[in-house]
Amino acid sequence: MDNNHENLNMVFQALADPTRRAVIQQLTAGPASVSELAEPFEMALPSFMKHIGVLEDAGLIHSRKIGRVRTCEIKPKQLSAAEKWLNTQTVLWEGRMERMASYVEALAAEGKDK
Amino acid sequence: MDNNHENLNMVFQALADPTRRAVIQQLTAGPASVSELAEPFEMALPSFMKHIGVLEDAGLIHSRKIGRVRTCEIKPKQLSAAEKWLNTQTVLWEGRMERMASYVEALAAEGKDK
Repeated sequence: MDNNHENLNMVFQALADPTRRAVIQQLTAGPASVSELAEPFEMALPSFMKHIGVLEDAGLIHSRKIGRVRTCEIKPKQLSAAEKWLNTQTVLWEGRMERMASYVEALAAEGKDK
Repeated sequence: MDNNHENLNMVFQALADPTRRAVIQQLTAGPASVSELAEPFEMALPSFMKHIGVLEDAGLIHSRKIGRVRTCEIKPKQLSAAEKWLNTQTVLWEGRMERMASYVEALAAEGKDK
């Protein structure tokens, strides 16, 4: 449970940045090299590499270097974990809203019967 | 677009903390006072109020004070926006995986025909 907490902390932290979200988005289309990923951004390579590092530490991507080229790839597990957490909350919330609506309807119907 | 980016930055940042996630989770069951929400945590009230402030600034909850009691309530819009962003990425990624699987199957079938 604690471990899961720490994972989610790192995943949400990693997603709290537009550059890192754009990298994830680009990697959904398939693996890409760091230089391909960095291309759309006006950013020095060391700064960009820090973003890659944050994504790797959060377990959202993994990278390997072959020769001089470092290729990144998405790791879907943590992305799914974050999605699942959010989905659980919205389902719980919507369930409560539905129960409230039914309750109000029941009250209204009761009012009509009188 | 930029606005949406900034919203998502703040939402994911707000969710990158276990106390704040626990507050959201508790609020899915219905509105609660700050003291009810603070109860499970061994935390000074000013520190807890900072977490409440972060959640409010991110648009994830809203609170109002009646007399001496501040009541918090979930605001589902930003929660849904974050969920939608994550869902888009997993759908894109799964789509790519399925296309790859079909491609590999087609290649294998072609091999058999020869």
